[in-house]
Amino acid sequence: MKKSFGSKPLVFPTPTWVIGCYDAQGKANVMTAAWGGIVSSLPPSIGVSLRENRHSYQSILAKGGFTISVPGAKHAREADYFGLVSGRDRDKFAASGLTPQRAEFVDAPYVAEFPMIIECRLSQTVELGQHIQLIGEIVDVKVDEDALDADGNPDMALLAPLVFAPGARTYHTVGPAIGKAFSLGKGLL
Amino acid sequence: MKKSFGSKPLVFPTPTWVIGCYDAQGKANVMTAAWGGIVSSLPPSIGVSLRENRHSYQSILAKGGFTISVPGAKHAREADYFGLVSGRDRDKFAASGLTPQRAEFVDAPYVAEFPMIIECRLSQTVELGQHIQLIGEIVDVKVDEDALDADGNPDMALLAPLVFAPGARTYHTVGPAIGKAFSLGKGLL
Repeated sequence: MKKSFGSKPLVFPTPTWVIGCYDAQGKANVMTAAWGGIVSSLPPSIGVSLRENRHSYQSILAKGGFTISVPGAKHAREADYFGLVSGRDRDKFAASGLTPQRAEFVDAPYVAEFPMIIECRLSQTVELGQHIQLIGEIVDVKVDEDALDADGNPDMALLAPLVFAPGARTYHTVGPAIGKAFSLGKGLL
Repeated sequence: MKKSFGSKPLVFPTPTWVIGCYDAQGKANVMTAAWGGIVSSLPPSIGVSLRENRHSYQSILAKGGFTISVPGAKHAREADYFGLVSGRDRDKFAASGLTPQRAEFVDAPYVAEFPMIIECRLSQTVELGQHIQLIGEIVDVKVDEDALDADGNPDMALLAPLVFAPGARTYHTVGPAIGKAFSLGKGLL
């Protein structure tokens, strides 16, 4: 039997992404977002939805770019903190003790200690009611070398990204690989 | 040290979602997608990106709705199979042995055996290059009762959704909760 929850923003999994930008005063700021995902392979693009009243929203529009820093499970506390307060009146980097690193290709900072960084150039915005979706063209992806597998690809189990569960509002992380995509299902062909 | 991967559709985590629709002949079809996420809280909306040449794309446009069936780890094989072949010339439900269940609020089928179902009414499309993003307003979420926590919320560890790692192209699942959101970071306030 299934229980019905009605019309709710509820699906598994959702990411825990830390969005980085510089504000009008040049201060490095970060906020946590779970409403996002890859939206196209070519050009490689990612969508992240923010409310229009967020401090980060106007900053990203003004600078034309943002970063996504993917926290590993060991930084769950800092990632959660980044979603609790506004950068209007706080220096969240200073409070967390984490390091703002200037991105290579866009005018935005990222969290140096986090294992996976996506640099995005803002390409369009989509109004979707309470949230505005920022579409970012991915200009670079950087991953900690100790989170790579034997083939040089990012290993999701080693990287241990935070995953957010809407509804229960819990953080989790990801376990070992259970199979290869585009392969596991071949037995049913 | 971080390794740079350039401009690639690569970020963690991405979901493994099985998109359900009826085609022009009324045949229940499913395809697997990893490019998607929640895009707004109000109206609760989800975005899923498909290539325009997919059999599902025209079907969803014609019917005005689709479902997302979230596979648990135990159905990794079937979820992968749904992404390997086209519904133009196959009956994927028959081949997998899984059951197409007519959705309650939209003209689309879902996978009865999967633990979490999202019913979506198509509200707009966004052209993003190789992919077109289908924005669906969430009209209902249904979850298996044995995947609920003590408060009646879906428990992500019990539900054990498949998670996809682009790049390495591996499937994983989600582990136990490691903390509560909007709480864990309060120590840094």
